[in-house]
Amino acid sequence: MSFKGRDVVSIRDFTKSDIEKVLDITRLMEPLAFGGSRILDGKVLAALFFEPSTRTRMSFESAMHKLGGSCISISESRTSSIEKGESLADTIRTIENYCDIIVLRHPKDGSARLAAELSSIPVINGGSGAEEHPTQAILDLYTIKREIGKLDGLSIALLGDLRYGRTVHSLAYGLALYDTKLYFVSPDSLRIRREVFEEVSKRVEAHETNDIMDIMPKIDVLYVTRIQRERFPDPEEYEKVKSTHRIVPNHLRNAKKNMIIMHPLPRVDEISPDVDNTPHAKYFKQMWYGLVSRMAVLSLVLGAIK
Amino acid sequence: MSFKGRDVVSIRDFTKSDIEKVLDITRLMEPLAFGGSRILDGKVLAALFFEPSTRTRMSFESAMHKLGGSCISISESRTSSIEKGESLADTIRTIENYCDIIVLRHPKDGSARLAAELSSIPVINGGSGAEEHPTQAILDLYTIKREIGKLDGLSIALLGDLRYGRTVHSLAYGLALYDTKLYFVSPDSLRIRREVFEEVSKRVEAHETNDIMDIMPKIDVLYVTRIQRERFPDPEEYEKVKSTHRIVPNHLRNAKKNMIIMHPLPRVDEISPDVDNTPHAKYFKQMWYGLVSRMAVLSLVLGAIK
Amino acid sequence: MSFKGRDVVSIRDFTKSDIEKVLDITRLMEPLAFGGSRILDGKVLAALFFEPSTRTRMSFESAMHKLGGSCISISESRTSSIEKGESLADTIRTIENYCDIIVLRHPKDGSARLAAELSSIPVINGGSGAEEHPTQAILDLYTIKREIGKLDGLSIALLGDLRYGRTVHSLAYGLALYDTKLYFVSPDSLRIRREVFEEVSKRVEAHETNDIMDIMPKIDVLYVTRIQRERFPDPEEYEKVKSTHRIVPNHLRNAKKNMIIMHPLPRVDEISPDVDNTPHAKYFKQMWYGLVSRMAVLSLVLGAIK
Repeated sequence: MSFKGRDVVSIRDFTKSDIEKVLDITRLMEPLAFGGSRILDGKVLAALFFEPSTRTRMSFESAMHKLGGSCISISESRTSSIEKGESLADTIRTIENYCDIIVLRHPKDGSARLAAELSSIPVINGGSGAEEHPTQAILDLYTIKREIGKLDGLSIALLGDLRYGRTVHSLAYGLALYDTKLYFVSPDSLRIRREVFEEVSKRVEAHETNDIMDIMPKIDVLYVTRIQRERFPDPEEYEKVKSTHRIVPNHLRNAKKNMIIMHPLPRVDEISPDVDNTPHAKYFKQMWYGLVSRMAVLSLVLGAIK
Repeated sequence: MSFKGRDVVSIRDFTKSDIEKVLDITRLMEPLAFGGSRILDGKVLAALFFEPSTRTRMSFESAMHKLGGSCISISESRTSSIEKGESLADTIRTIENYCDIIVLRHPKDGSARLAAELSSIPVINGGSGAEEHPTQAILDLYTIKREIGKLDGLSIALLGDLRYGRTVHSLAYGLALYDTKLYFVSPDSLRIRREVFEEVSKRVEAHETNDIMDIMPKIDVLYVTRIQRERFPDPEEYEKVKSTHRIVPNHLRNAKKNMIIMHPLPRVDEISPDVDNTPHAKYFKQMWYGLVSRMAVLSLVLGAIK
Repeated sequence: MSFKGRDVVSIRDFTKSDIEKVLDITRLMEPLAFGGSRILDGKVLAALFFEPSTRTRMSFESAMHKLGGSCISISESRTSSIEKGESLADTIRTIENYCDIIVLRHPKDGSARLAAELSSIPVINGGSGAEEHPTQAILDLYTIKREIGKLDGLSIALLGDLRYGRTVHSLAYGLALYDTKLYFVSPDSLRIRREVFEEVSKRVEAHETNDIMDIMPKIDVLYVTRIQRERFPDPEEYEKVKSTHRIVPNHLRNAKKNMIIMHPLPRVDEISPDVDNTPHAKYFKQMWYGLVSRMAVLSLVLGAIK
């Protein structure tokens, strides 16, 4: 199936072979990220970010620049027509006239799907509501493949806020396309959503647990996510959860030698800075893989690479 | 007259032949908006937006990128020296050193004229106070010419806030250069400014009315603008005006088959979304004409096209 | 010493011969600022501005564009991960994956040094705390050299807030590398920091005074800086200081004919607008020298020029 002109709304719209294609092209993008290229010369990306973001917006913008394209951006609803009361539908039908591709981050569930349906140009979901963040899943898969050498045959723990973390939802769907064993590790109040757990369970072995130490020796990848204070009505409960879900070097004693730790970032307290210098830590390298995998997605969707 | 180096402050600085020139060049820009071009390679546009804007800023930025140029932007006074107490005059005399052309949107009447006088590089008025928005008028004229095939011989209704809407002022001046009949349709408190009405009346047939239905069968273009709640001290008055000035499909029963509806956007309630799918609706297409007409203005003023 | 890959944190890291090199390359950049160039094609600069700025951010961005490169920017902590609680260290280790060079402005002393140590790509200090602003010093030195023809043998007065003004600290260190006589003119509460005065006194003749009129006939350069109201607990004291430190045409009667007045801008009240049209005023021209000197720094650090 051709990628040209395609929307990227949910990782679930991608077959395993689609994902393999993107990962292959990502590998080819690595030298271009150093040297630059002009394969997207004359193309304009509109980054419409209705929620704060650093890394998603900046990595898309950089990806575009590294390929010779340009960007126009809204990064706050306040400076835009949105505050004049314009609907998302009208915003999309306006902006699509000024660009060749739209990346949308929006707080409402379903916003990216709506935008993709309205728009005559491709829309990439840069994070919508608590739902999905498909290019984050692609960069996560690429990070694993590139650092471990494969995706099949791995045991992967997803730790933290599995209920509201859209990153985790997209990644779980992506991992379930491979021969993986998934461990969902979270406080009770932030357990993985039932629909996600059920869907991935149909394809791969999936377990839920409260205790990361139990499974530490078995896993190849530890994927940590942020637990937000706002999720806890009781501050004491938050402090308790925070301390039991924080990764410190001591936790890694029983880890496999080649186990990698990932995190979508930004990090607050979930991983102690002491961990950064261990060979397990791959979360900053992951940011680089984010750049190159977004270069691949843009090149494919804009038809510069087939 | 050459466009190179020229300021674009008011549509009234343009002769009919100037405008025809811009409209002709705009037609040539359409393929470049798809394919890109490098005719403004090495040129930098500074977008100084001291009021919220989406479409004006983004369409200028995209126009620059599509022609191979680059942009630097201020989109809020808060993040700039302005909040340190700098005068507009100093800001202009600073920024002109960093760029080849300035687009200014500013809440004060006369700001664009002042900037143009101070600056040694061209200044484009991107909307100043309640006065003028000349490139909006150009894109509006281009939309009419492109969609109907001509500007002469048409009857055009301008509906909504004709008092504070700078778009309408610029457009009325522009239309009065052609053989047109103008209808100004507004609530009493938002009637077209006397000086505008008098000036256009010298050149073309102009009428004022409260009732759009009366003239609906006669018009070729219905140009709708936003009526802002803030203009009405009495909320009841606002609600009444809003309902009588809202365009719904039912209003279009007696319209000419080829009548087109335009709107500078953003829209709030002035046009029912049901109208969007009628063949009359051209307000999203108008955004695309905005991009290409701004490409024409930039190319001409920067001397890339003669 | 090669500039390629080098951080630009403090002017004190530069030898006189380093500075001469940058000034020489700056001269070569002047035509490129008009015509554009592609020597930084494919390179991406990240502008991380955690304090309001117009001229530093925009001149770096324009410098990059004029050389064929691109920019990604954060201009407010609010729209970024920073507000999610991310540390500066994590921000730097993330952003360095998306770009080839970082320009950082940050309110904390030591932030630029920390960023340079953490980052594997070059970091340019765009103003850190009350400490330093090295590229401002370079552009100031270039302005003097270009306008007067030399740096050696000059008498230079630095006027205003010498305590908190980071511009002045960097410039004083730079000037002390040349055969100069320095006059520090300030209200008592805003006298030049002891460590700066002592260090420059080791190399050049340096004096402190309250009275600019006294030294006016002797100086070749009058460098004025902003005095901020916030520095004065007592508003009356502020008003007094403001009036005695404001430059008006009358003050210039006894000035040398070729004396030049500089200011890092933005200006509030420190220089009367009447002075702008005197031949002494070079503060707007200084902005242009800022653009070209930043082009030189970027070209050198990114290895496009040796």
